[in-house]
Amino acid sequence: MSRTNRSHCPISFALDIFGDKWSLLILRDLIFKDKSYYEDFLNAGENISTNILANRLKLLKKEGLIKSSKDSSNNRKIIYTPTDKALDLIPMILEIIEWSAKYDSKTEAPKEFIDMLKKDRKLLAKQVRLKFKE
Amino acid sequence: MSRTNRSHCPISFALDIFGDKWSLLILRDLIFKDKSYYEDFLNAGENISTNILANRLKLLKKEGLIKSSKDSSNNRKIIYTPTDKALDLIPMILEIIEWSAKYDSKTEAPKEFIDMLKKDRKLLAKQVRLKFKE
Repeated sequence: MSRTNRSHCPISFALDIFGDKWSLLILRDLIFKDKSYYEDFLNAGENISTNILANRLKLLKKEGLIKSSKDSSNNRKIIYTPTDKALDLIPMILEIIEWSAKYDSKTEAPKEFIDMLKKDRKLLAKQVRLKFKE
Repeated sequence: MSRTNRSHCPISFALDIFGDKWSLLILRDLIFKDKSYYEDFLNAGENISTNILANRLKLLKKEGLIKSSKDSSNNRKIIYTPTDKALDLIPMILEIIEWSAKYDSKTEAPKEFIDMLKKDRKLLAKQVRLKFKE
């Protein structure tokens, strides 16, 4: 599970952490869709397999992007939360959303969300982040 | 080579296209490092293999992110250029650069670049893009 940086180019560094087809979808569920549990990620709609999901959760935890703890309302459940390092990816994720909304004619990105994004992306980023203030 | 969208979630849509460890490095070389040739990408420093490189170039072309043409100064060479669809990824790539510069203590991102990025990212994005104006 140890990672070797291919280079310290900032783009390569980031891709070594989340450059795959799944990690950002887990962060999407955590940050934008208020999901917190293993089953939530498993049922997210893109049909991630259990072994890939377990692997990605481990990697994201190791890289300091998510934390896990026992759910206070049900001791047998693990609850996942994004760290500041993950929340710092919100501006990047917003750029991805805007790009895809432009190029995918069947995008599911809500029009109001894209309108807000175009109007004031800083405010929107702040609002998304605010949900995670302790 | 045909792609099936896992969903039309905007994040998933983008990852279906460039969610891997290499595609964005090729776009980095094209957009930020003035590289245009197969050998340039091959020698970029992260040791991409020829078969992965050939595969990614094909995919990027198929997805409309790069164009290839015969080099006017050497008819046997193929020259690659980014399309508008690729250049529209500049703001996202700038966010990745800033995030990595923050979290990689050994980052190679030049300090002046990061300072410019923090000061006026819109202007910087415009400047990068301007190089590709016909």
